[in-house]
Amino acid sequence: MKRRDFFQAAAGAGLASTVIAAPAIAQSAPDVHWRLTSSYPKSLDTIYGAAETLSRYVAEATDNKFKIQVFAAGEIVGALQVLDAVQNGTVQCGHTVGQFYWGKDPAFALATGGPFCLNSRMHSAWLYYGGGNELLDKLFAQSNITAFPCGNTGAQMGGWFRKEIKTVQDLNGLKIRIAGLTGSMLQKLGVVPQQIAAGEIYPALERGTIDASEWVGPYDDEKLGLVKVAPYYYYPGFWEASAQQHLFINRDQFNSLPPAYKGVLKAAAQAVNCDMQAKYDAVNPAALKRLAGAGAQLRPFSVEILDACFGAAQEVYSELSAKNPTFKTIYDSMARYRAEAYLWFQLAEYNYDSYMMRQQRAGKL
Amino acid sequence: MKRRDFFQAAAGAGLASTVIAAPAIAQSAPDVHWRLTSSYPKSLDTIYGAAETLSRYVAEATDNKFKIQVFAAGEIVGALQVLDAVQNGTVQCGHTVGQFYWGKDPAFALATGGPFCLNSRMHSAWLYYGGGNELLDKLFAQSNITAFPCGNTGAQMGGWFRKEIKTVQDLNGLKIRIAGLTGSMLQKLGVVPQQIAAGEIYPALERGTIDASEWVGPYDDEKLGLVKVAPYYYYPGFWEASAQQHLFINRDQFNSLPPAYKGVLKAAAQAVNCDMQAKYDAVNPAALKRLAGAGAQLRPFSVEILDACFGAAQEVYSELSAKNPTFKTIYDSMARYRAEAYLWFQLAEYNYDSYMMRQQRAGKL
Repeated sequence: MKRRDFFQAAAGAGLASTVIAAPAIAQSAPDVHWRLTSSYPKSLDTIYGAAETLSRYVAEATDNKFKIQVFAAGEIVGALQVLDAVQNGTVQCGHTVGQFYWGKDPAFALATGGPFCLNSRMHSAWLYYGGGNELLDKLFAQSNITAFPCGNTGAQMGGWFRKEIKTVQDLNGLKIRIAGLTGSMLQKLGVVPQQIAAGEIYPALERGTIDASEWVGPYDDEKLGLVKVAPYYYYPGFWEASAQQHLFINRDQFNSLPPAYKGVLKAAAQAVNCDMQAKYDAVNPAALKRLAGAGAQLRPFSVEILDACFGAAQEVYSELSAKNPTFKTIYDSMARYRAEAYLWFQLAEYNYDSYMMRQQRAGKL
Repeated sequence: MKRRDFFQAAAGAGLASTVIAAPAIAQSAPDVHWRLTSSYPKSLDTIYGAAETLSRYVAEATDNKFKIQVFAAGEIVGALQVLDAVQNGTVQCGHTVGQFYWGKDPAFALATGGPFCLNSRMHSAWLYYGGGNELLDKLFAQSNITAFPCGNTGAQMGGWFRKEIKTVQDLNGLKIRIAGLTGSMLQKLGVVPQQIAAGEIYPALERGTIDASEWVGPYDDEKLGLVKVAPYYYYPGFWEASAQQHLFINRDQFNSLPPAYKGVLKAAAQAVNCDMQAKYDAVNPAALKRLAGAGAQLRPFSVEILDACFGAAQEVYSELSAKNPTFKTIYDSMARYRAEAYLWFQLAEYNYDSYMMRQQRAGKL
C-alpha cells in the first residue's frame, strides 16, 4: 500500500471509530477501537514497546472491548506529526514527547523535561503532585488534547563524539545531531545543531559530515552501532535527565468514552509510566557493559562545559519566560520544586547511592 | 463496636463476598466487594493513602462495580497480621510489606528491599524486568497469595538519635527502635533492637527508654514530632533504600475474578506503584525544610559505621543463604542485577544529580 493510500484508509478508519464511540456513553462496555500513532520505530522495543504495553493493559482490563492498535512512526503519520494527527482526529491518540512540538509553543518542551530540569523521579513527582499535570492540561487543551504521562527513559547519555571534547572552545563549530530547545541553547556556545533521522546518523558520523550525535542510552544506542564510528561516549545527557513520554488523546474522543474506559486509560497510562522506566533501568546496565566491551570510551562532560551549558540554558529560559507567560508559569512551578527537591535528594537517596557506588567500584557488590 | 465484634462481623462479610464473587466468572462485569486491610494508620496519608488510591482507580475503571473498601491497621486485623488475614480469607486483600513477615520466611524481606539492596528505581526494574516478580510469586503462592508491587517510599532517613554517633563503638548498647532483618543485623554490632508502636516512640525517646528510632522520611516523621526529643536526624536509612509495598491478594479470590477485573487490578497496582513514590518525592522536600527550621540536626552516618553495617549485612545474607535455598535464589538474582545497576547508574543519573546538587548548594536553582 502506498503511504498516501494508507493515510487515507487510516483517516477513514478514524472517522468510523468516532461514529462507533459517540453513542457508547449509554452502554457500559461498548466495543471501541482506537488507533495510536507512536513517534518511534518498532526497533525501539523500549519506547515503542511502551505503547504496546498500554494497549495490552487496556485490552486486558476491558475484556478486549477497548482496543488500541499501535502504529509505528511513519505508518500513519511521521514521528513529529503526532500532535497534529491527534488534534485533527486522524488518530484518536498518540505516544510521543511534548518537546517535539516546541516550535508551536516552547512550553510543550517542559512536559518532557529540559536542559538542567528535573530527574525522572522528580519529574513524576512534579507532574502528579506538584501541579505539573494541571498546568500542562491547560496547555494541551488549547490543542484539543488530553495528555497523560506515559513512560520515561531516565537520565540519558550525552551521545557519541568522534573526538574528545574538553573545553567550551572545543564545542565551537561542532556539528551535533541534537534537536529542540537544547539545540538552540547549544547554538549560544557555537554548536551547529543538526537534524538527522536515526538511520542516517551512522553514515554521517562515518563520513564526518557530523561530529557527534546524541540518541538515548546504552540499550537503544547499541542498536545504531555508533561505537564503531564515534567511540567517545559522553555523559550525562544534561538535556534529558527526564524524557517524559506522554499519551496524547484527542479531547473529543476522550470525552466520548464511557467513564470506566476513561478510568482504565488513566490507570494504564500511569502503570506504563512506571513500566517503561523499569524496563530501561533493567536493560541499560548490561548494554553498557557490552558497549564498553566493544570499545566505547566513557567520558564525563567537564565541569567547564556543564557550567557553560547551564549558563546558556538559563539565558534561554529567561528569554522564553519573558516572551511567553505560559512558559513562564510552567517553568517557574517546576523550578520552585526543583530547588527543594535537589536539597532533599542530597540526603538519603544520594548518600545511599554514593556509598553503594563506592562498594561497586571496590568490587564488593 | 468492640474490636472483637468488628472482627467477627468483618469475617462474615468476607465469606459473603466469596459467595458473590465465585459465580461471577460467567458475568462480564459483576458487582464485587472486597475488603483491604492496610498495615498503616490513616494518619500516614502517604502509605495508607496508596491503598485508597488503588481503591479509587479500580472503582473508576469498573463503573464502581468492583469496590475495594480500605481498612486501617487495627480496624480488622493488626498492622503485622495482613499476610495471615489475606491467606486465610478474613479479607480478600491487604496493603503491606513483605519484610513484616520475615519471621515466617526471611525471603519475604527481599520483596521489600533490605539493607544495602537496591534503590527504588532499581528495585522496580528488578521486579518487573529482572525476574523479581516471578521469583516472589513462587514464594507468595506458598502462602496462597498473589502479590503485586504497589508503592514505594524511596530511600528513607536513618532516624532520630538523642545523641550523636560517630564510631562503631557508639552503637554498642544503643537501644534503637528498629525491626526485622535490620534489627538482627545491627545486633551483631551491639545494638539492642526495640519494637515499639508508633504512638509510644515519642515518650520512650523523651524518657530515654530508647536512644533512637527510625521511622520513614521527613513528611511522615514530622507528624511524630521526634525532633523535640531526639534532634540528631541521620541519613541514609541504608536498610530501606527501597521500601517496596505490595498488594497481597488471596489467590483463590484473585482466581475467581473475571479476567477484566484481574487486568484492572494489575494495572491499578502498577499505577499506584508510580503514584506513591511520586507523592513521597513531592511532599518530602518541604517537610525537610520545616524539620530543619524546627531544629533537626542533619547528620550523615560515618563511613566507618556504614562499612561495619555493610559487613554485618553480608554476614546475615550469607547465613540466610546457607540455610534457606529460596532466600539464596532470590537474593542472588537481586545481587546480580545490583552489581550491574550500580555501575550504570554511576554515569548519567549520578553525574547529572551530582551537578544539579552542586548548583543547588551554590544557590543557582
